[in-house]
Amino acid sequence: MSVTAASGFVAAGVAAGLKSSGKRDLAVVQNRGPLTAAAAVFTANRCKANPVLWSQQVIADGVVSAIVLNSGGANCYTGAAGFQVTHGTAEAVAERLEISSGDVLVCSTGLIGDQLDLDVLTAGVADATLALTADPAAGETAGGLAAAEAIMTTDTRPKQAEYTAPTGWTIGGMAKGAGMLAPGLATMLVVITTDAVLTSEQLDTALRRATHVTFDRLDSDGAMSTNDTVALLGSGASGVEPTLDEFAAALTGICADLARQLQADAEGASHDIAIEVRNALTEDEAVTVGRAVSRSNLFKAAIFGNDPNWGRVLAAVGTTDAAFDPYGIDVAINGVQVCSAGEPDQPRTLVDLTPRAVSVLIDLHAGSATATILTNDLTHDYVHENSAYAS
Amino acid sequence: MSVTAASGFVAAGVAAGLKSSGKRDLAVVQNRGPLTAAAAVFTANRCKANPVLWSQQVIADGVVSAIVLNSGGANCYTGAAGFQVTHGTAEAVAERLEISSGDVLVCSTGLIGDQLDLDVLTAGVADATLALTADPAAGETAGGLAAAEAIMTTDTRPKQAEYTAPTGWTIGGMAKGAGMLAPGLATMLVVITTDAVLTSEQLDTALRRATHVTFDRLDSDGAMSTNDTVALLGSGASGVEPTLDEFAAALTGICADLARQLQADAEGASHDIAIEVRNALTEDEAVTVGRAVSRSNLFKAAIFGNDPNWGRVLAAVGTTDAAFDPYGIDVAINGVQVCSAGEPDQPRTLVDLTPRAVSVLIDLHAGSATATILTNDLTHDYVHENSAYAS
Repeated sequence: MSVTAASGFVAAGVAAGLKSSGKRDLAVVQNRGPLTAAAAVFTANRCKANPVLWSQQVIADGVVSAIVLNSGGANCYTGAAGFQVTHGTAEAVAERLEISSGDVLVCSTGLIGDQLDLDVLTAGVADATLALTADPAAGETAGGLAAAEAIMTTDTRPKQAEYTAPTGWTIGGMAKGAGMLAPGLATMLVVITTDAVLTSEQLDTALRRATHVTFDRLDSDGAMSTNDTVALLGSGASGVEPTLDEFAAALTGICADLARQLQADAEGASHDIAIEVRNALTEDEAVTVGRAVSRSNLFKAAIFGNDPNWGRVLAAVGTTDAAFDPYGIDVAINGVQVCSAGEPDQPRTLVDLTPRAVSVLIDLHAGSATATILTNDLTHDYVHENSAYAS
Repeated sequence: MSVTAASGFVAAGVAAGLKSSGKRDLAVVQNRGPLTAAAAVFTANRCKANPVLWSQQVIADGVVSAIVLNSGGANCYTGAAGFQVTHGTAEAVAERLEISSGDVLVCSTGLIGDQLDLDVLTAGVADATLALTADPAAGETAGGLAAAEAIMTTDTRPKQAEYTAPTGWTIGGMAKGAGMLAPGLATMLVVITTDAVLTSEQLDTALRRATHVTFDRLDSDGAMSTNDTVALLGSGASGVEPTLDEFAAALTGICADLARQLQADAEGASHDIAIEVRNALTEDEAVTVGRAVSRSNLFKAAIFGNDPNWGRVLAAVGTTDAAFDPYGIDVAINGVQVCSAGEPDQPRTLVDLTPRAVSVLIDLHAGSATATILTNDLTHDYVHENSAYAS
């Protein structure tokens, strides 16, 4: 159930001292092969952190031997000095594992604008590389679980997923992310490993196909991170070569699982909301409409108050340029058809919003495309966590 | 200091019984001429309320004799029955004032999806048309003030403004709006009157020029209303004919004054934030960048917590496609240069965020265009007000 579930991977998570809490804050995942194929996708934010700038170069040749991740600082907007810290961290990993620093991805998460201490990172890398372990029988000291804990920021729990195919290959993954969750990608660090035999091009195709319909459709709070990275490493250690479609489908399942775990742990949230847009003209328009609703603070605050305020859904839909007749839209909330063809239908009092899971169904009657956006409600705790984070 | 400050206008506000609180909830403003020139701009939301659909027809010929406004219900997504209520309200005003219903603008504000009671509205119109008064020496019972109170929803205070030109003509105005404040327009109902001698075409030109740089740049919470209306009525009663530029400049001042009053009364807000974007390639791009920052919940929550988290400013800027070098941007908060050329500059601890007024200055170094977006912070009280509004 972790990033070491697939054969060929070892991991560790240690407390390097970057977090003032003294908790684990540095993780290393190594791919011991025989293959070192890899793919990665990064934030669409133009203001990219130094580790993203570094990792974009590393991934260019499709070869990655290890990945080092730290919480306790994003190393973003830290200038040339910050880039040297990222480079130095990769060098430290490379030296310890006797690999090339050009094959080491680096991920960082935390506050923007603070410099990280390279000495602290280097000492943490030394500890972590000594502690690398494969998937044990499970238990608290598993390297995979320790790594998943080390990348947590405001996350309340580690996020892991695993899938083993009947034909004998495995995908495992870990993720962190609780706030600043918005598309292109949702804000997160994710490491996924597989022992399937695939080329870096195949991994890249499968990864883009999977993230497009999972992480890219998670929009917790509309805020796009500077540090997003989803890396997929392939060891080929199973010796089994799945078809691309077979692998991509399994990978999409793993990504969807991790995305739901991110949603369930979103900062301060009290509801997990799935906004399904049906019968849009195109899938892109379905995403646009769902995204507009997911970004309406008024809608999100209403759900927090267990108020099925469907007028706020329609007000958000109306801000988009998707194809639809504004007075021909249906809206159902948790199974109750509150609006049909733009007029009140069932009484809103019939809607029970006490469960954490909320379903909003919007029928545009404009085509046959569908998409679902995952989001959360806007709560007092969200405001509290995000007003107190840096201080 | 009200919508009756200009000669030729009378107003009233009464308690018709639409608000459960028993407070004033229906206002009428009449233009007694000699001119009945008018212009209006409406929400850009495609899901428009029935009164907006009605008023768009009324304004087509540039002639408006009266405007009736109610709080206690938006009359949006109420179907054909709701449109009949709007029409009936205009008919009631027309009958009482012996004018054409086709010259009566209607504005409504409140919850979406609830039908209004036409009998209640008609009785309120009867009361209001009997109570119409011109600008008195001022005092609690002035019709203009009563009208400004009658259009309040979650507003904590009425919003009015006035300007008298040295050459003897006057502009007066009233506004309501506290939440769902976002562009195209900011969510609001605004009635502005003038006794300057101007055609409806001149009023329209001046109104669009003024709202473009005032109400359209107020973005309290990113949520766009279904009911926005800004109406400008001209009586010509002063007999003075200003130049269009002279009038437009004064009108812009009135609109800016009212916009600042809306911002200062935004639901739950504890800070009024002015985001000035300098040296953009175009004014549109300056607006886009300012708007992106104004819609970052993370940035807004940080300001609530008196945390000058400039990383969240840059993370929001990076989501736009405006022209800039991501690593060449400067950011100052309340006069402290916290970021220069994409690197930390002055310590964030120097920034004092205890005053209500917050200034964020973003220099893109990409051109010479400038724009300022007004917004508010994201607070516990915002969440509370908007989670409890419908219940």
